[in-house]
Amino acid sequence: METRGISRAVIGRLPRYYRYLGDLIDEGIERISSNDLSKKMHVTASQIRQDLNNFGGFGQQGYGYNVRFLRTEIGRILGLDKSHNMIIIGAGNLGQALANYASFEKNGFLMKGIFDVRPELDGMMIRGVPVRMMSELETFLAENEIDIAALAIPKARAVEVSEILVNNGIHAIWNFAHTDLRLPKDVVVESVHLSDSLMKLSYNITCHKNGEKKGAGV
Amino acid sequence: METRGISRAVIGRLPRYYRYLGDLIDEGIERISSNDLSKKMHVTASQIRQDLNNFGGFGQQGYGYNVRFLRTEIGRILGLDKSHNMIIIGAGNLGQALANYASFEKNGFLMKGIFDVRPELDGMMIRGVPVRMMSELETFLAENEIDIAALAIPKARAVEVSEILVNNGIHAIWNFAHTDLRLPKDVVVESVHLSDSLMKLSYNITCHKNGEKKGAGV
Repeated sequence: METRGISRAVIGRLPRYYRYLGDLIDEGIERISSNDLSKKMHVTASQIRQDLNNFGGFGQQGYGYNVRFLRTEIGRILGLDKSHNMIIIGAGNLGQALANYASFEKNGFLMKGIFDVRPELDGMMIRGVPVRMMSELETFLAENEIDIAALAIPKARAVEVSEILVNNGIHAIWNFAHTDLRLPKDVVVESVHLSDSLMKLSYNITCHKNGEKKGAGV
Repeated sequence: METRGISRAVIGRLPRYYRYLGDLIDEGIERISSNDLSKKMHVTASQIRQDLNNFGGFGQQGYGYNVRFLRTEIGRILGLDKSHNMIIIGAGNLGQALANYASFEKNGFLMKGIFDVRPELDGMMIRGVPVRMMSELETFLAENEIDIAALAIPKARAVEVSEILVNNGIHAIWNFAHTDLRLPKDVVVESVHLSDSLMKLSYNITCHKNGEKKGAGV
């Protein structure tokens, strides 16, 4: 499937480029060739050149890439040049962990609200943001411009809550519930199924114990 | 890359089959045809038949799959028929969230230890397990049989700590640090890069705001 003529596969790789380029800046490196970047990222230089050519290719033959410029451009493509308002549904352990991830804010993801059904959590402050009750959700969404909702609730309520979110204008859901969400085409869902990734690890351990070299993980 | 003649792609899909079959059991469904399963999972029936044929195919023509049997078999293939001892490095928000995920234990992932460098956390109990200091890690690994280490620490220390783990017999790392780990071939790493997934969501929001139908997320 194509987006702006850019394949999903390429888009899926951009955050990794963005991360490595950030590390290079931290190391004070201003220019890098596709060959050196390829050694760092363990992907072929031709893949890197192909990927980055999707965006006009920021490299100059023989000069390599301007690290800061390239990172800024990729950030712009990923929409990181704008800030995104986020709410978190579920103030349990995972919801609180997400709410406390200050590093998301560095990339412009701003935690504007956190919601739960448990009265004992009502008003609890997390990094300056009070936990609100789910009964306040629709009013909150009407009064605030929210781009992203993170779902950190049990799967039993995930579908119902995701529909409430969509009906109240949310178009992007970061789903941690252990279930798949079926939502309208114009709603984007990015799921993080922690148990699934743990099971892949388990499969590989089993292979390893059976004396195999390498399994499906990584 | 092949493992036991089973492609990574198939292995990567098994946890999802396992999850759906578990839901079917909860719904009291004992048998299901590949067609009905395909409607539920939104994958083609032929893909389902191909995937499950890797394991000899548990379906009987015309009778469909025995849900409980199939789930048990897939669980066995994933190594979920055995329990796995896990430790968590980092007792911050994410580490504590992982430590509190009782649902992992249902699948046989047992949290045996949690480690941190912050003295103020020393001895704090999380679901019956005390937070230990990193200085105790090597002794702990020598005295306990640990299969999996979850890394819930900042990337600055992730490489160093992962090497300590590997040097002390850990062969499976569940990496939440925002960096890639380069470890020996016989060590399996499953990385969960939360920021990367958030960036894909951001890309899709940007596409959506630019009036596009669908982006790269899910």
